[in-house]
Amino acid sequence: MREINIGLLGCGTVGTGVAKLLLEQRELIASRLGAVLNLRRVADLDVARDRGIRFPDGMLVPDARRVVEEPGIDIIIEMIGGEGIARELILKAIAGGRHVVTANKALIAGHGNEIFRSAAEKKVDLYFEASVGGCMPIIKTLRESMVANRIAAMTGILNGTCNYILSKITDEGSTFADALAVAQRQGYAEADPTLDVEGFDTAHKIAILSALAYGMPVNLKDVYIEGISHITPMDIEFAGQFGYRIKLLAISKRHDDAVEARVHPTMIPFANLLSNVNGTLNAITVSGDATGDILLYGRGAGMMPTASAVVSDVVDLARNLLSGTAGRIPALAFQPERIRPIPIMPIDRISSHYYFRFSALDRPGVLSSISGILGAHGISIQSVHQKGRKTNGAVPVVMLSHRAQEADVKKALNEISALDVTGAKPVLIRIEDEGLQD
Amino acid sequence: MREINIGLLGCGTVGTGVAKLLLEQRELIASRLGAVLNLRRVADLDVARDRGIRFPDGMLVPDARRVVEEPGIDIIIEMIGGEGIARELILKAIAGGRHVVTANKALIAGHGNEIFRSAAEKKVDLYFEASVGGCMPIIKTLRESMVANRIAAMTGILNGTCNYILSKITDEGSTFADALAVAQRQGYAEADPTLDVEGFDTAHKIAILSALAYGMPVNLKDVYIEGISHITPMDIEFAGQFGYRIKLLAISKRHDDAVEARVHPTMIPFANLLSNVNGTLNAITVSGDATGDILLYGRGAGMMPTASAVVSDVVDLARNLLSGTAGRIPALAFQPERIRPIPIMPIDRISSHYYFRFSALDRPGVLSSISGILGAHGISIQSVHQKGRKTNGAVPVVMLSHRAQEADVKKALNEISALDVTGAKPVLIRIEDEGLQD
Repeated sequence: MREINIGLLGCGTVGTGVAKLLLEQRELIASRLGAVLNLRRVADLDVARDRGIRFPDGMLVPDARRVVEEPGIDIIIEMIGGEGIARELILKAIAGGRHVVTANKALIAGHGNEIFRSAAEKKVDLYFEASVGGCMPIIKTLRESMVANRIAAMTGILNGTCNYILSKITDEGSTFADALAVAQRQGYAEADPTLDVEGFDTAHKIAILSALAYGMPVNLKDVYIEGISHITPMDIEFAGQFGYRIKLLAISKRHDDAVEARVHPTMIPFANLLSNVNGTLNAITVSGDATGDILLYGRGAGMMPTASAVVSDVVDLARNLLSGTAGRIPALAFQPERIRPIPIMPIDRISSHYYFRFSALDRPGVLSSISGILGAHGISIQSVHQKGRKTNGAVPVVMLSHRAQEADVKKALNEISALDVTGAKPVLIRIEDEGLQD
Repeated sequence: MREINIGLLGCGTVGTGVAKLLLEQRELIASRLGAVLNLRRVADLDVARDRGIRFPDGMLVPDARRVVEEPGIDIIIEMIGGEGIARELILKAIAGGRHVVTANKALIAGHGNEIFRSAAEKKVDLYFEASVGGCMPIIKTLRESMVANRIAAMTGILNGTCNYILSKITDEGSTFADALAVAQRQGYAEADPTLDVEGFDTAHKIAILSALAYGMPVNLKDVYIEGISHITPMDIEFAGQFGYRIKLLAISKRHDDAVEARVHPTMIPFANLLSNVNGTLNAITVSGDATGDILLYGRGAGMMPTASAVVSDVVDLARNLLSGTAGRIPALAFQPERIRPIPIMPIDRISSHYYFRFSALDRPGVLSSISGILGAHGISIQSVHQKGRKTNGAVPVVMLSHRAQEADVKKALNEISALDVTGAKPVLIRIEDEGLQD
């Protein structure tokens, strides 16, 4: 039986999962693929740590550069992470004619265009299913299953850490800080949680998916990003009273001459299936003009789910190698010469429903001042709720708006902040009423 | 740009959708594929009917056999349905070296083994994504994305007609007959609804998926099948009181030396995401040992969603043609020589939780007779509910069991039926407490 030789760079959590699958499921994979995936070399600086795997002698080595250059290796799996050495090694692997699999969303989001260009020039494939959504096959679905669809929109819960924290606040009324501390103890959040809780990881993912869906280059820098660290139990509780849950959503929409690509805490109705995606789980809906809405749901992170996606890419590349094909599916779903920049709309240009919470002195005329300013900016209010509880002499006033322009909303909130009857900065949370309803 | 020539056999609802996509999305598909899908010929006995498509002169022809034999056609799409002429034409197309796409689940479930053997011998590919789950890419997910997983179980709502009818009974308390009549008026059920409501269509689908998941030949004849026509509003209401919804589920589980493959109405807890899949929508969960549970959700039928899946297969085959490959992915996910029969467990051998409803005379000692018989057969009862309302002097007595063997359950129910204190035949509905919880 033919053998495909694999070099694995980086043996941290997911890398270890990949090694486990390649070694322990070797026979199962061969029975499907018709060839053996032969894990030839694993490179990690730490060759001493017990990973619960018995590596054959000489398989685990410290020098990733040598693995990339080793003759006879067909596929390089990059599991180092980050944008420095990982980028350098991937470019070196491509230059050497190796096919590459990576789960590195930061790298694809930040340097994907450059890397895909090199790969196309060298006629090698670079697959990256595991970079978005863990074991949910969202990239395969966009590149292959929805190939006859114009994609209109995508809405996803793409970061398990944030979803865990928000679920914790929702279910137990914890503060953000307490929920984060629990997430860190459980291993669901990093010691420095910034990349996750400030929305950057989710932004990497929606930048990648938007490119795949619309035929545009990866454009991370114009994605609007707002994290969850300012979300309070009070807003989550109010949301619940209005029939909404707060989720960190990645939202991407196609307009005629622009796209929306934004990451922010969002209120979604209980009837939206995404509102029932809790804990560390991920889900994404995609709207195609032929399919209508489809939804994928599953573990978006973790050792084995992510490793499963990595190995599925390795098998795809192995099938290409066995049939002497490369470039079977273009990296960004569209043929490179058909990819055109499409501007991402500045957040000011979007329109949405809004939840506002003002901290207002409990005295006559306050409501009318606030709603007067909103009205002057063309923002019409669907409902107003003055909540009983006083804090520092102020009461929370909650308003839900009809659809409004974000630019108008910002101007109005600035004016309202300047009123001498309002206290703390107003809270703004966007509401997504469209999308998948059960 | 290279052209791939397509012959479409059958231009009913889904066939028309396929023609529409191939003609109207030709440019979009080419921008992804890098080649043109050229719909060369469409065969349908009815060449006169207005399908809302302007076919170029000479494209629409009455004779499917001639299209199969027409020189220069690369891919045949079979949209005729049924097991007669469709089978004959597919075998003829394969014999002529054409690659084939079909959505014909009855054919694959009934004759898949024979057809896949012919295709392997002639080194042509036969793809059938649209045969299960409409636009949900469940076959691609099983064959490609989960390639490094041992599949432990699948649970699906795979028939939109049944799900619509059950949703209608649940939401509106209609009878089965009334809900069916509405489904027929809405176009969600056929004039003869047997194939759908008696569970046969769902059985076709789970037979196909079980083969793909476990590496066994397609085995339709041993799938246990029970439809929904006996489901009453009363049982749906009681289910709701216990926190369950009734769905027609396809359940497939891997044991060491056998598999379960069964289709029957099933109570699932509200917390199971599948319980929130309503109307004509479909969903399926798959448990892999690396991925954990994943779920796909979307339109399982209908013109354009199904056509989208058909065209995604056509594009896959076109990519194979462009790279001179066939047999890239084995039809049943495993290499043909690795496929081994695995017996499907007779329904008597399964174990499950159960809902029983007895119609019992409201007199002392009845409950103890019933529970005595259940106990004697090793069936332990989790709760008993005597419902107030009398019909014909009898009251409904509902019992929920702990896990029990189906064979024991049948014996016990037979004995209970023979008691002179019970009326109509006892109702048995299986409960599935495992699976995806939100």
